[in-house]
Order: sequence, then structure tokens, then C-alpha cells
Amino acid sequence: MKNGVKIVTIGGGSSYTPELVEGFIKRFDSLPVKELWLVDILAGKEKLDIVAGLARRMVKKAGIPMEIHTTLDRREALEGADFVTTQLRVGGLSARIKDERIPLSHGILGQETNGAGGLFKGMRTIPVIIDICKDMEELCPKAWLINFTNPVGMVMEGIVKHTNFRKIIGLCNVPIGMHKAIADLMDRKMEEVEVTFGGLNHMVFATKVVIDGVDVTKEVIKKWADQTVKNIKGIVWEPDFLEALGVLPCSYHRYYYMTKEYLAEAMEKLKEHKVRAEFVKEVEDKLFEIYKDPNLCEKPKLLEERGGAYYSDAACSLIDSIYNDRGDIQVVNTVNYINSDNHKAIQNFEVNEVIEASCKITKDGAVPVEIGELPKAVNGLIQQIKSFEIIGSDAAVSGDKKEALLALMINPLVMSQETAKIVLDELLEAHKDYLPQFFK
Amino acid sequence: MKNGVKIVTIGGGSSYTPELVEGFIKRFDSLPVKELWLVDILAGKEKLDIVAGLARRMVKKAGIPMEIHTTLDRREALEGADFVTTQLRVGGLSARIKDERIPLSHGILGQETNGAGGLFKGMRTIPVIIDICKDMEELCPKAWLINFTNPVGMVMEGIVKHTNFRKIIGLCNVPIGMHKAIADLMDRKMEEVEVTFGGLNHMVFATKVVIDGVDVTKEVIKKWADQTVKNIKGIVWEPDFLEALGVLPCSYHRYYYMTKEYLAEAMEKLKEHKVRAEFVKEVEDKLFEIYKDPNLCEKPKLLEERGGAYYSDAACSLIDSIYNDRGDIQVVNTVNYINSDNHKAIQNFEVNEVIEASCKITKDGAVPVEIGELPKAVNGLIQQIKSFEIIGSDAAVSGDKKEALLALMINPLVMSQETAKIVLDELLEAHKDYLPQFFK
Amino acid sequence: MKNGVKIVTIGGGSSYTPELVEGFIKRFDSLPVKELWLVDILAGKEKLDIVAGLARRMVKKAGIPMEIHTTLDRREALEGADFVTTQLRVGGLSARIKDERIPLSHGILGQETNGAGGLFKGMRTIPVIIDICKDMEELCPKAWLINFTNPVGMVMEGIVKHTNFRKIIGLCNVPIGMHKAIADLMDRKMEEVEVTFGGLNHMVFATKVVIDGVDVTKEVIKKWADQTVKNIKGIVWEPDFLEALGVLPCSYHRYYYMTKEYLAEAMEKLKEHKVRAEFVKEVEDKLFEIYKDPNLCEKPKLLEERGGAYYSDAACSLIDSIYNDRGDIQVVNTVNYINSDNHKAIQNFEVNEVIEASCKITKDGAVPVEIGELPKAVNGLIQQIKSFEIIGSDAAVSGDKKEALLALMINPLVMSQETAKIVLDELLEAHKDYLPQFFK
Amino acid sequence: MKNGVKIVTIGGGSSYTPELVEGFIKRFDSLPVKELWLVDILAGKEKLDIVAGLARRMVKKAGIPMEIHTTLDRREALEGADFVTTQLRVGGLSARIKDERIPLSHGILGQETNGAGGLFKGMRTIPVIIDICKDMEELCPKAWLINFTNPVGMVMEGIVKHTNFRKIIGLCNVPIGMHKAIADLMDRKMEEVEVTFGGLNHMVFATKVVIDGVDVTKEVIKKWADQTVKNIKGIVWEPDFLEALGVLPCSYHRYYYMTKEYLAEAMEKLKEHKVRAEFVKEVEDKLFEIYKDPNLCEKPKLLEERGGAYYSDAACSLIDSIYNDRGDIQVVNTVNYINSDNHKAIQNFEVNEVIEASCKITKDGAVPVEIGELPKAVNGLIQQIKSFEIIGSDAAVSGDKKEALLALMINPLVMSQETAKIVLDELLEAHKDYLPQFFK
Repeated sequence: MKNGVKIVTIGGGSSYTPELVEGFIKRFDSLPVKELWLVDILAGKEKLDIVAGLARRMVKKAGIPMEIHTTLDRREALEGADFVTTQLRVGGLSARIKDERIPLSHGILGQETNGAGGLFKGMRTIPVIIDICKDMEELCPKAWLINFTNPVGMVMEGIVKHTNFRKIIGLCNVPIGMHKAIADLMDRKMEEVEVTFGGLNHMVFATKVVIDGVDVTKEVIKKWADQTVKNIKGIVWEPDFLEALGVLPCSYHRYYYMTKEYLAEAMEKLKEHKVRAEFVKEVEDKLFEIYKDPNLCEKPKLLEERGGAYYSDAACSLIDSIYNDRGDIQVVNTVNYINSDNHKAIQNFEVNEVIEASCKITKDGAVPVEIGELPKAVNGLIQQIKSFEIIGSDAAVSGDKKEALLALMINPLVMSQETAKIVLDELLEAHKDYLPQFFK
Repeated sequence: MKNGVKIVTIGGGSSYTPELVEGFIKRFDSLPVKELWLVDILAGKEKLDIVAGLARRMVKKAGIPMEIHTTLDRREALEGADFVTTQLRVGGLSARIKDERIPLSHGILGQETNGAGGLFKGMRTIPVIIDICKDMEELCPKAWLINFTNPVGMVMEGIVKHTNFRKIIGLCNVPIGMHKAIADLMDRKMEEVEVTFGGLNHMVFATKVVIDGVDVTKEVIKKWADQTVKNIKGIVWEPDFLEALGVLPCSYHRYYYMTKEYLAEAMEKLKEHKVRAEFVKEVEDKLFEIYKDPNLCEKPKLLEERGGAYYSDAACSLIDSIYNDRGDIQVVNTVNYINSDNHKAIQNFEVNEVIEASCKITKDGAVPVEIGELPKAVNGLIQQIKSFEIIGSDAAVSGDKKEALLALMINPLVMSQETAKIVLDELLEAHKDYLPQFFK
Repeated sequence: MKNGVKIVTIGGGSSYTPELVEGFIKRFDSLPVKELWLVDILAGKEKLDIVAGLARRMVKKAGIPMEIHTTLDRREALEGADFVTTQLRVGGLSARIKDERIPLSHGILGQETNGAGGLFKGMRTIPVIIDICKDMEELCPKAWLINFTNPVGMVMEGIVKHTNFRKIIGLCNVPIGMHKAIADLMDRKMEEVEVTFGGLNHMVFATKVVIDGVDVTKEVIKKWADQTVKNIKGIVWEPDFLEALGVLPCSYHRYYYMTKEYLAEAMEKLKEHKVRAEFVKEVEDKLFEIYKDPNLCEKPKLLEERGGAYYSDAACSLIDSIYNDRGDIQVVNTVNYINSDNHKAIQNFEVNEVIEASCKITKDGAVPVEIGELPKAVNGLIQQIKSFEIIGSDAAVSGDKKEALLALMINPLVMSQETAKIVLDELLEAHKDYLPQFFK
Repeated sequence: MKNGVKIVTIGGGSSYTPELVEGFIKRFDSLPVKELWLVDILAGKEKLDIVAGLARRMVKKAGIPMEIHTTLDRREALEGADFVTTQLRVGGLSARIKDERIPLSHGILGQETNGAGGLFKGMRTIPVIIDICKDMEELCPKAWLINFTNPVGMVMEGIVKHTNFRKIIGLCNVPIGMHKAIADLMDRKMEEVEVTFGGLNHMVFATKVVIDGVDVTKEVIKKWADQTVKNIKGIVWEPDFLEALGVLPCSYHRYYYMTKEYLAEAMEKLKEHKVRAEFVKEVEDKLFEIYKDPNLCEKPKLLEERGGAYYSDAACSLIDSIYNDRGDIQVVNTVNYINSDNHKAIQNFEVNEVIEASCKITKDGAVPVEIGELPKAVNGLIQQIKSFEIIGSDAAVSGDKKEALLALMINPLVMSQETAKIVLDELLEAHKDYLPQFFK
């Protein structure tokens, strides 16, 4: 890194990229990115070129010596990289539309981490990420892989359980969003509110909130519930439930605690051709139209509606802390190991299982803080998702249809053997091209 | 016990009692029951007298010196007892009908151990069983309590976590039924087929089957699935799923893996006024008519259709093994502790959590055999039920409505916050008389 | 307890009793002890009468209606008791002298909890305590047993692993002494200094010290070490070691971390006939001479040199908190279970293993506070002592000489197979009368 | 590996190398080693040349196309390697002599894995192995590292806890020696006797012995003890102890269970200048004289007395099984993880702690078989050694003298704070040149 940092972004043609570029520009003084390599596949070449054009205009306007490279040859880019980020989407948004519509058409809820859709996204993605890890071991063994491709938990389990590669950190924008919302609720700035997070990806809890040295967790839980009750539209948490739970759930928890309510809503949207993936696609199409504008040289406002807001900024922040050995706290996905003194961060999980938690970030990566034991009341659900992540990643690697069925059957959103079998067959057929391991 | 064994059966007016009496008569040579005390409450006096009449005729016919006592004063009966069995039903079958109908009317599946119904049965029952334990500590501190009142798992957690009473063993007829079915499938006698069971009550797995010293588990799993496939009526297991699972599930597992299928069936029966509790009530009414017959002096055939077949016989067998220090293997509910060498029977659970497992039975009670680790694929579901049992038993003791809501919300059959709140209110109102802890 | 509290003290003829009596007198307003039964065996009758005489004079002077009863019939005393304390010593101090001298004569260090001596004290004591528990289940099932007979850890494991009796709490004066020493060191009153303790009996650590809401653990550790360094006489802790350890060890830890130093000192004393037991015997003889004085009607000053200072006062304080449901924090021995939310107090031990820790005391007994994970650096030693306690209690119950040898061999102070065999034979022979289980 | 396998042996000038070469020659048909690179440092150049000369004569005689390369430039050798073996000794045998003599001169027992000597060997070695791992990540990311440099357990913990490198397997010849001895005892060939091993390096137990499908563990334990009793010379196991232990200890266990006996013997040898390292040095000097003989073209018989017999052969066998994806069982050191179904091999250890156990060897490395729970009686000792390995490896990486003191203090062979401090200072001084991390 003597002559500046080399970053490789796989899935570089993604609509997220301008936020990433903005993040690197903002931090150039402390994190001098000399080369940013945007890698994509042939099918994504057009988008890649559009995004790279915007990126170059942004850099030029900023007046900094950051080179933007594009390539379809991943290995060319990886050679000597310092950090690699993965924001790829195997099969693109049209695959995600199938992940959501096919299960819903049989009454099963889900998205790209939940339910049947999450399993298929995982099975398409894990073999690709494993290949990237292998290339990195060979071409840039010192580099860190920052993965923000979903399902982050299942992808991380796939790497940890099925490879020897350990320089990987998973990233999600849910905790940062909760942190912001809690600060707003308490009328404070984010940096004044210390929030401890612990759980799994898309199943993370805020376990403790401290302001001015005082533990205000109970107060926050109460306000959180009251606020949602006032918000008459939408699906809100019951205050009694939150109080008894004793920790703050994230938005994705509603899929499991309010399945019926969410399913009803999703069925409405299905009819109107507005499953989440379709909504995202619409926004993306608009974004690329905007990106094309040769006069645009900054991240457009609309990107914040895309759903992944803060995602790329969180990635830049993480890279900056590793590069500068900052030792600050960020919420990421890593294994449940602290050190030889206090070896587990969350007592409910095994030490080699992947958790999403508040971590100290240094040049050696991420180390979780001590969280203790999550309440018995949440233990069942988090173990169920952990089982699903593990069995799902096993199926992704083995290509064994029986294991894929097992993963579906143990998912708490499926709840029907008959539907599981039908949906498995339909999704395997729909994603045939991206699941070669099942068609050997 | 010098002058013969004294047994106390609480809920003695139950239709199960004749099987229990038959069991003691059969075993009189090795297990000389001198006094059998049938205890019930005032509301059950008529049934108690009918059952006692039949019991006395059975004993007389057998020509053995076993005294049948009846009383409405539990403490009178407990004085100096050697074994106590609990087959009581707080609120009777009419309470169970509410447990099933009210949730179903809001689309929630359940029975007396599953879902919302199981929670309410537990909350009505646990305080009563705790009182019985307190009386036993005072009046017959050496006696063993054999509990077959459902929900057995939640009741056992209530005793283990909230009292210091340890002389309790929980009993269920599901494992003995599976054992018999496996033997039939393999064309063998039960005693030729060694089956190891491990899991939770109504969530037990056959983890290993050995015949003539050979491990035939895989073969049994295959046959089990094939057989259910041939059986075109009813809800059957998918062979691929069972093979990937690697252990044999019990019938109650279908509630969780085939929720949709079961719910559809239950909704049909709801309309026809044939929820399980109503069917059981019908059989029971017939049974009591038959029991009244002054010429009847044996257990009538119809009792086998009651659903609890083998239950009472299993209880007699368990008492016999404790009394005679037999050291044989029976499947019961007890804590997950073996001994200081191999301290946990099932690695997935804590050492003080209650499991249902193959146990060695001696004069010191039940000690589980070493089961090892249940597959990761089932870990999520069993932890979810264990969380529910524990939080449910906490709510039963505290009488805190928030904790009861929490228990409902974490149950995998409820899946809706809105429904949870409605069903909680309706069931609390319906069972007001039997839940004084919630109306202080 | 309507008409005042009934206390039974087994081993009532002990020299500790006057402190116990003083404790009850002091607390009479909140803890109205109506009857104090001092129970002993025939061989201890003379001492029992001396102690009872003094006790009666103390009560008379205090002018309170507390009856002092003496009896040699334990069962007579236990009938209807509210609290039972055990301060018995099977074989008396002369047995303890053998426990110390025989191993030392072969170069093995130990006392009544450590090494070979601790094992034999445990094997003599556990069967007696088990008998007391059985009597209590029958005669006073609601009473609590407060055990301060050593080895407290092994005795507790004996009860927890080999009986169903759970109303037992173990007590030791080491933590209260450390608490006092820490307060002195910081120039504060004890009640201003909050110290969290966790570990095993005679192997407890102060894990956290808080003053005025500030965590001062590191400062205390530094001062503790500096102070001991200044104290040129005696065996002192190395500051670097304490800093790296990160928790404050108790005095008994020196047996294991400074075996060589302690052994050298003990060998000197052996020659001078001043092993600890002999020193204690000398003090005791003097104490009984003083107790006889018909004009004495208070606890004499000399008792504080006896070694068990604060022991009896701690017992009174514990009984008072249970009786009045105080919910205060005291350090006692109990199982490692908190509640269903945070189920283990110390992560290093199993949930049903006995720990010594800061506990909340209520009418339902003692529940440990959450300690978290003790440092990896101490895990080896605490597991070794836990293994020794468990195997030792197994041997005490089974009377199997092979298991007793195993317990000796795994004790970290024995370190020689040859010596283990010799010492085992010599101690079995020396204590033959008190170890009937080994001579069946 | 298309054109044959490339092996790199670091510490190639070791006297072990001819056994390694013989092993590769024997297996050439299945494991076609094209290049064997012997790497050493300048100080070892003479030995390296002698060994390489012999190796070339051996290969020539065998008539196979295996190239023997020598180099002092490790990175040159590593480029593109398939397997790397480490048999280096930082500081050579003269450092080992200090490791043994200095502690012994203060009455502390030890060798290169035990006690103070083991700690210093570890602290000299771990930074070097970490550097090798870093080079491998860069130069041969697909290669496996087979480490047989002691202390294997501490070195492995150093890599697992302080790096992200996972392609490492630790090797020891103790299990293979025990396997052979058990087979001899039972008058069988090794391949007829199935022995399951579990524990830590130099602290491994044979937990199960099966012959012709029958579990003969108890019989083997009995014979093992009887045999050692007959063998009047030397230090032998007490049969009662082995029976109560229930598993077969390895020879290194005697250091802990018979410390006194071993220490006496070692003190004798110390006086005669025959500590183990000195004996080894004598044999080595003779070996190199023999190796020089230009007519010698095979491994001389004397090498078998060297102490590491079977070590190199075990390494060849391990490499062969990985290369050919054999799936056979070998005993190696790896992390305690099996798979998502049965995730821990030995329940006593955490899933990411390094164990020595029977493992299945495939192209993906080593996966332990399911061992279950080691007896409570051995839990204390194995946890103590595991703590020592972990704290020792922490000190090796941090270069913090306080942590090194902590490691010494918790080692069961040190037992004296005073001695610990003296020995620490003397050994730091003695090994100054090889411990730069402590002298920054």
C-alpha cells in the first residue's frame, strides 16, 4: 500500500457504486485510494460503463488522483489488491424477482435473505464468492474481502465452514439505520448515543443503549413502542411485547413475529406487480438514466431511496478503520470469537458461528465486543435462522437437492412440506443457469 | 413400603384410571400395591365414584388384596405415599375445547401442548402441580411424582426452574407408540428392536435403531418414508426430507413441518365441531356409560381409542422399575444430566433443561443415556420449543400478562402479533376461574 | 414460623457457636429466633454443655425470649425447623490433624479443602450431610440448610449430584474477609465498596470493584500487589502476575500458584508440631476454658483468632435475608443458574455445577448475579478443582477406593502416583471408623 | 500439481530429513514428488549440505526422478509449493539444552512442550511460523502446511488465534507409537486394531479400542497396566488408577501425574549432563557423521533411536492422503470442528480450539471424528494445558513479559511464583537473540 490503496469492487456496475465513490472521495486524505477497479461480467458491461463514466466525472470534480479502472477479467483486477468489495448479484434483479414471486405465488413470504428466496439467492451466490476467495488467496493474499452481497449470514457461513479463507467481513446497513433512528427518537446526535448490537444478519437486536454514561435501554424500548403505536399506518410493535422481550428487534424481525400481517401485505403487492424486487428494479432503471447524464458529477439524491442507503458509506468507513488501525466500534458480520480471555461475544452461539455484532475494527479486522447472553425468549428464533444459514450454505456447496429441501423445510416462513417441494422444483428450474452444482 | 406400596393418583376420576388399575393388577407379584388412593375435586366426584366402582370390581375379580380409596382431600391421601401420579386436567375437557377452538377460530393451530392452547393448559396446570410438590415435600418426602398431565415439557420446566423439588419424572406415550410402529415395520417384536430416543416432549426423535447388534437406522428411515408414501390418505413425510434429516421425527413434528396442511384439516373439523378435544369428550362420555355397568370388571376395549393408550401402562412399568431398582431403559422426561463423566445426554440443551430421552430407570429415578448432538437441522425447532416451554412456565408462575404475550409471540404456530393479542385476551377471559395468578 | 423462628445447629458444641448466638441476639428484632437447638453427638456432649451454658447466659443478659435447647437426637431437633446450620466436624480436630500431618509427612501440602486432607474431610462428611438432608425432607421439608462444614465445594457437589435435595446454601468467610481488606486498602467503609466475586469455594476471585459508580478494579489490583510487596514478611503476590491475571485471587490460591513456598513453610511447622489443625486445637482448648467461666456472658475476643471469624455472622446475615426476603447481595455457594434469560452466572462452568459467587438473597434462596467469563488464564486451575470436587464427592458416595485414588491423582497438590498410593492407604487406615463406606 | 508435487521442508538440514526422503521414495507411485526443496538458515548450511547429499544418493539409488534442491532463501522455495513441512528448531539444540537445564537447575521439570522449556520453545517458534504462513498466503496460497515443530499445540493455537491462515495441520508421533504398542499388547497387526484418539498434543488419550468389531477398551486398559507393573524398571502406571480413569493416557501424562518421580529422575540426569536435549544432541552428532559417508544411500538404523521415529513417515502418509483424497483416519492436530451436524469432536473444548484427535484426511485437510466427552476426571488437566497453550501463544505474539510470567504461573509443572520469576529472567536473557519481540 506504499503507493496508495488499491480497491477492487466486484459487481462494480451496480447502482450502489456512486455512493462508494463518494465515500472514497470524502475520505481521500486519510484513505488515499489510488486505484478503484470496477469488475463486472459481460452481461453487465453497459451498466459498468455508465457507472464508471459517472465515477470518473466525480473524481475529476473532486480533483484527486484516484484512477477508475473497469474490467471484465476479475483476476486482472485482483492482482495486488488491498481491499475487495463484493456487491454482485448472480442473475441480476430479474433473478431476485423470481425469488420473490414464485414463493409468494404459493403463499410463502420472503426476500433475498428470508424464506425460499433467501435460500436460492444464497445457493447462486456462495459458489461465486468461494471462487473469489480462492483467487484472492492466490493473487492478493493480504487483502480483506468486504462482502455486502446478500444473504450476508449464509454467505459468511459458506466461507467459514467450507473454506480456510478468513479475511472476510460481512456488512449490512440495518444496524446503522437503527442507530440513527434511536438517536432521532432520543433527540440526540448519533455520536452521542452508544448502541450495542448483537444477533444475526437481518436478525440483529439492539441490546443496550447508553447516553451520557447512563443505561437508557428500557426508556428507548418504551419510546420505540409508543412511537410505532402512534404511527397508525404500517405494521407496528406491541409495547407489552417489546417490554417483555427486553431488547430492540430490527425491522426484519417482523417477518417472523408478524408473518400473517406481512404476508397479507405482500399478497396485495404481488397482484400489483410490486414485490420489493420490482420496486427496486424501477428505481434502478431511473437511476441509470440519471447516471448517463454527462453533466452529472455527484451521487444523485434518488439513490437514497434505493434501499441500500448507507451501505456503501459503511463499507468505506470500515475500510478506512482497517487501513488506519482506528480501533473504533462498527457493526459487522464476523465469527463469534473475542480473545482468549473472553472468548465468545454472544453465549448463545458457537465460537465459530458468524454473528452480526458491534465490533472493534483494527488493521487485523473485526473483533466483536462482549455481548453476553441474548434472552431465552429470542434463542429459539435465532437458532432457527442459524440452522437455516448453515444447512443452506451446505446445500449451496454440495448441490444436493435433498439438502436444499431440508433447508426449506426448517425455514420458519415455509411451514408446509407440500409447498416446499413445489417451490423447490420451480425455483431450481427458474434458476437452472445459475445453479450448475445441482445439474451435474 | 414394608407393608406394601401406597399409590396416590391425582385426577383419579379420569377415564385413564382403569388402565392404571389393570397395570397394577398385572404386576401385583413384583409390585404389591396395597393402597391405591384416587383423588379428585368436588366437580369430579361423580366420575370418581364411577371409576372407583369399576376399579373395585376389577380388583375383586383379580382376587388380590389391593385397597381402592377415594377422597376429595389431597393431603389426606398424600400422607406416607410411595408414588404419586398426576393425570389431572384443570378445568376439564371443556377447558381443553376452548384451548383448541378459540385459537383455531383465529387461524392458529394447536392442541394441549402446541401453540396457544398448550400455553394456557400449562398456565392452568403448573401452579397446581407446584402445590402438589409442596404437599409431597411435607407429607411424603420420599415419594416419586410421575406426571402425565400435559404439557409435560412445560410442566417439568415449571417444577425444575421454580422449585427445589426434584423427585419428578414426566411421562408420554408417544415414544412407546413409535417403538411399536418401528418394530411392526421391521417385522420384529418390540423387545428385539432397540430404539434410542432423544428430544423434547411431543418433539422427540428416534435417533438410532439397532437390531441384532446392527445399526439399521438408515434402513428404518427409508422404510418409514416409503410406507407413509404408500398410505395415500393422510399427511405423509417426504422420503427425501427424512433422509436429509437423518433422524425419525414423531407425529407431533407435523404440526411444525406441515403447518399449512394440518391447519387446513383442522379448519374442516372445526366447522364440524370435531376438534380433537370434542372427539375425546365424545369417547369419554361413552366410556363413563360403560364404566357404570355393574357387571363390567375389566378395562373396556374402547379405552384404547381414547388417545392415551399405553400411557397408564407406561406409568405402571416406570413405577415397577423404580420400586424394583431394575435398571432397564424407558423413555421419560427428566433433566439432561448423566453423571460426572459424561454429564450431558443431549449436547444441544443445557444440563438443567428437561429432555425426553431413553433413560436408565433405578430406585434413584431416571438417568438419560448418552445421545450426543442432535443434527443442526433440527436445532432451531427444538430450541424454539424449549424457549416456549421456559417462557411459558415463567408466565405460569409470575401471572404476568406481558410474559404470556411473549410466550405466544415466540411460538412457531402463532406467527401474528395481532392474533396473539386477540387470542391472549379471549383465552384469559375464557379461563379466568383457573388463572387466579393473572387476576390479582 | 408464625410463633418465631426455629433454628437447628448441627455440631452445636463447636467453638463457633457463641458468635452465632451473638448474631441472632443482634438481629432479634428483624429475625425473632424463638428456639435455637444445639445438636451434637455423645463424644461432644461436654463441649455442647459448656457452649449451651454460655449461650444461655448471653441470651439472659440480652433479655430476649430465645430458648436454647441441647440434644443428642438430631431427628428430635429437626422436626418443624425453619433453618438448619451444619458446623459439624466428623472425627473432630484430631481427624483434621491426621488430614494435615499424614500427607505432609510425604511432602504433600493441604488443609481441609486442599489436597489429600480435603478429600478425606469430604469423604467423612458427605454421607453425614446426605443423611441430614434425608431427615430434613421428612421432618422439616420447608427448611433451608446453611452448610459451613468444609470442604464446602465438595460437600455441595455431593448433595447436588447425588440427591434431589436443593434447599442448601454453602457458606465461607473468605469473600467477606477479602471485601473488608479491599475496603481498608481503599480507605473506605465496606458498604461503600461494591465487590463482585466469582469462582469456587476457596478458589474465589474478586472480578470487579466499583466505588461511587466507577470501576476501580485495575487500581485495586495494583494497590493490592504493591501492598503485599511492602509487607516483606510472608508470601506475597508479584504485581506483574496480578496485573496480567486481571482479577484478584484469594488467599487459598497461593497453595496452587506458590506451592513450593507454602510447602517449605508447612514443613517447618510440621517439625514444630504446628500444622494449622494443631494451632486451631490450641486456640480451641483455650476458648473452652474461657467459655466455662460462669461470669462470661458474651463472645470472647479470642474467638476472632480462631480462623473462622465472620463465618457465623455471615450465616446469621444469610438467614436474616432469606427470612425477610431482603434481595441483598451476599457471597455464597449455590448452583450456576440465574434464570431463563441469562441462565449461567459463570460461563466457564456447567449450569448445575456449584459456584461461589455474589448472589441475590430472597425467601427463595440464593441466585447468582451475572459474572460472565472468567479469564482463560484461570480456567485450567478452576476446572481442575471442579474435577477434584466432583470425583471426590463421587468417591465419598460410592466408597470405591479406585475412585478415591483417582481423586488424589487429579489433585494439583499431589503430583506423585507413588505418594498418592501410600497416602491413600495411610489415611484410609487412620480414618477407618469414619469411612464405613470403604470397609463394607 | 500437474507436473508432479513440489514439497518444501523448512529446517531441511534436520537429522529427520532422511526418513522423510525415504517416505517419499516409498510412496512415489501414488505421490509423485518432483521437487523436494530443503530450506535452512545460514548457520545450518553445513548440515543442510550433508543431508542433501545423502538425500540425493537415496533418490539416485531408488531410480526415481525426484529433484533435491537446497536453498537459504525460503521465499524462493515456497513459490508454487504444494506442501510445506516445518521441522525447524529456532536456536538449534543448544537452545533446547538451555530450555531444559535452566528450569531444572531451579527444580522445574519440562521439555520442549512441557513447563518453562515448552513456553520458551513456543515463544521462539511462533513468530517464525507466522512469517512462513504469511509467505505462503502470498507465494503458494493453495499449499498445506504440515507442522511438526514443537510445541505443536501452542504453535497451532498461535496460528489459529492470531492469523487468518487455516491450511495448517499439526503432527506428532505419540499416537502412532501408542497405536503400535496397543497392537503389540493384543498380539495383532496395527491395521487390525482400531484405536480412537482424543485430547491435546502430548496430552492425548486412547479413548476406545475396537478389534473385530468388539469394543475391547477395558481389556486393553487392564493389560496395559499389568504390563507396566511387570516392567519393574522405569515409572509405571498403577492399574487401579488406569481403571478408574477409563481412558489410556500417553507417556507425556506422566509428567503431570508423576511429577515427583520424573523430577527425581531428571535431577539425576542433570548432574550427569544427560538431559533429554543433550542425549538427542549426542545421537545427532553421530548421525551426521554417518550421513557424511558417501557410500551411504539409505536411512541409517540409528535414526530410529533419535526419538522422532515415525514422525517423518507420518508426515509423508498425511501428505499422500491429502494428495490422493483418501478419506482414511490419521491422528493429527486441527480445530475441534466436525461439520454442521455434529459440530464438536470433543465436547470439553471450544469449537475453535486445537485438539489432537483421530481425523478423516481428504483433499480438504483433516476433520476430526466424533469423540464425545472426555471424562470429568481428566477435564481439569486438559483445560490447564489448553490455558497454557493459549496464554503462551498470546505472549509469543505480544512480547509482553507479564503475559509470559502469567503463562509460567499457570503451568502445572512450575508451582512457584519465586521460581517462575527467576526462571523467566534467566531464560529471556539466555534466548535474547531469538526473542526480539520481548526486547523492542
